[in-house]
Parts: sequence; C-alpha cells; structure tokens
Amino acid sequence: MSDATELRPGDVARRTRTVRAEDIGLFTELTGDRNPVHYDADLAARSRFGGIVVQGGVTTGLLNALVAEDLPGPGSVFLHVDWSFPAPVRPGDVLTAEARVVDVRPDKPICTLATTIRTAEGTVVVDGTAVVWRDPLVQQATEQRGTQRRVPEQPVPTMEGQQS
Amino acid sequence: MSDATELRPGDVARRTRTVRAEDIGLFTELTGDRNPVHYDADLAARSRFGGIVVQGGVTTGLLNALVAEDLPGPGSVFLHVDWSFPAPVRPGDVLTAEARVVDVRPDKPICTLATTIRTAEGTVVVDGTAVVWRDPLVQQATEQRGTQRRVPEQPVPTMEGQQS
Repeated sequence: MSDATELRPGDVARRTRTVRAEDIGLFTELTGDRNPVHYDADLAARSRFGGIVVQGGVTTGLLNALVAEDLPGPGSVFLHVDWSFPAPVRPGDVLTAEARVVDVRPDKPICTLATTIRTAEGTVVVDGTAVVWRDPLVQQATEQRGTQRRVPEQPVPTMEGQQS
Repeated sequence: MSDATELRPGDVARRTRTVRAEDIGLFTELTGDRNPVHYDADLAARSRFGGIVVQGGVTTGLLNALVAEDLPGPGSVFLHVDWSFPAPVRPGDVLTAEARVVDVRPDKPICTLATTIRTAEGTVVVDGTAVVWRDPLVQQATEQRGTQRRVPEQPVPTMEGQQS
C-alpha cells in the first residue's frame, strides 16, 4: 500500500443524495416498518413531525454508502455507530453526508469518523461518530482494480450518490 | 390513555426476520452502497468476512420496525442510537431483534431501550441502546384504530417481521 491510500486525521469525504418518496416503501420492504408517520399524510401532518418523514435507516444509509464508496472505501464496515437524529427528514430533501477522520489506529485497519448529515438548507439531521473497520484484502483488491475512490483532501468535492 | 398503554422499565418486545439475498440490492437502491463485500462472492470469501455480508443498515432496520410496530409502537422514531456490530450478518440468517425498556422519561414521551439483534445460533450481531420519542397524537390515533400492538410483558412472543 502506498502512502496515498493511508488515512490521516482530517481527511474528509462527502456524498449527496435526494430522498425519494419511494424510499419509504423500499425500506418497509427491507424491514417491515409500517409506521404511520411514513405513510399517513393526514396523521403525520397533525403530529409534531408536521408531515410525512422517512425512516432514519434511509437517512443513515447515506453514511453506509459514504464509508463503503468513498472514505475509507471498499471493504469498510461499521464496528460501532453513535448517532443523534436532531431533525426529521422528508421526501425531496437533498441530503449531504460528511465523514471526517478523527482517529486512525496504528495497529489495526480501524478508524474513527465524525459523521454528519445535513439538508440543503443546512439543518443537521444526523450527528455523531462511527468506528469503521476496513478489510485489508478488499482494500488491496479494489485499489489494484483502480476502483479506489479516495477523494483529495482539499478541495472536497460533493459526489452525487448512486440512484439506480 | 389507559395504564395499559404506558411503558414500564422491563417491558420487552421481539421481532424476527430472515435476511434475504435480495435485501442487499434493495439497500443499494436506497443508498448507493456497492461495497464489494456485499456483491463479490470470491473477494468476500477471501476477506476476513469469509463470505458475502449484508449492509449494517439492513440488519438494524429490524430495530426500526420493532420500535415502530411493537414497542413503543406507531409514532415512534429514534432520537439517538448507539450500536456495536460485533459479528457479520449473511443472507439466510434468521435475525431476532429485541428491545427492552430501560428508562421512561416522566416529562416527555421519551424512553431508552436496550437493543440487541441475534442470529438463530445466538450470535449477537447488534448490541447497544436507543432513545425513542413517540408522537402522542399518532399513539392516540393508532390506539383508537385498534392497531396498537403492545405485547404482554410475560410471556414475550416472537413475531415474524413483515416480508412483503
């Protein structure tokens, strides 16, 4: 592995995705979560939410993608997450997830990231930390394939998330 | 609201779901997460994972369903989650999520849950806590509709998750 692929505290990546109304149904298909705050527009409008909100797992999924696609990159999985959800997310919201390296273990392929997700209006909807383990063999294999997608430290581009 | 619907420390609910291979693709559609550990069987087999694993968000989605469907019930959303992922989850694993009430705020509709997810073999794959807020109006409306699904404290049934 070259120095270019080594994580350093301060490394940052961002990823942007627009939340779709159909994401709610996809998440229900994955989980069985049929909470009326995701489906009953009238009831949701009268609740504190003020309208339909999406499942938290749809929102934080953007952080799954960010660590797996961008920073640290392919082969990364969460060992631990600690996330607050200070504001609701609605269909149509344009979310930008950010991960910033806080700490890198010298002995193992483990790092700690400061993680946030904001709306286009700047509202923080997820805030916290994640501890990530990156499989060395997967890292090596994907770098050899040229699919390594680490972004430069400065400037930090905003990448559109995949929306198949 | 009657006493019957009030949360008490020690209340427990469980929900079981079998992880499907197609859940990986659904989660990718939601997030853009194309990590090869979810798709490249050969590479995953040679990695520390020892084979294809599913995204953590697929696994924890069962806890989204559990709080929204069972305990506390409809209208519930996460304010905070703190989860460790001590072991990987594979397609075909039969997961059982459990939530146990640890603390109930007297002043607000907020409770703290001890949350775990185990495989049928007893391996803990998620462990931690969640702070949940339940919208009072949604609670009242769904209880009036008779869709309230609180389970009795003893014995605790295992409910099959929805798999549409």
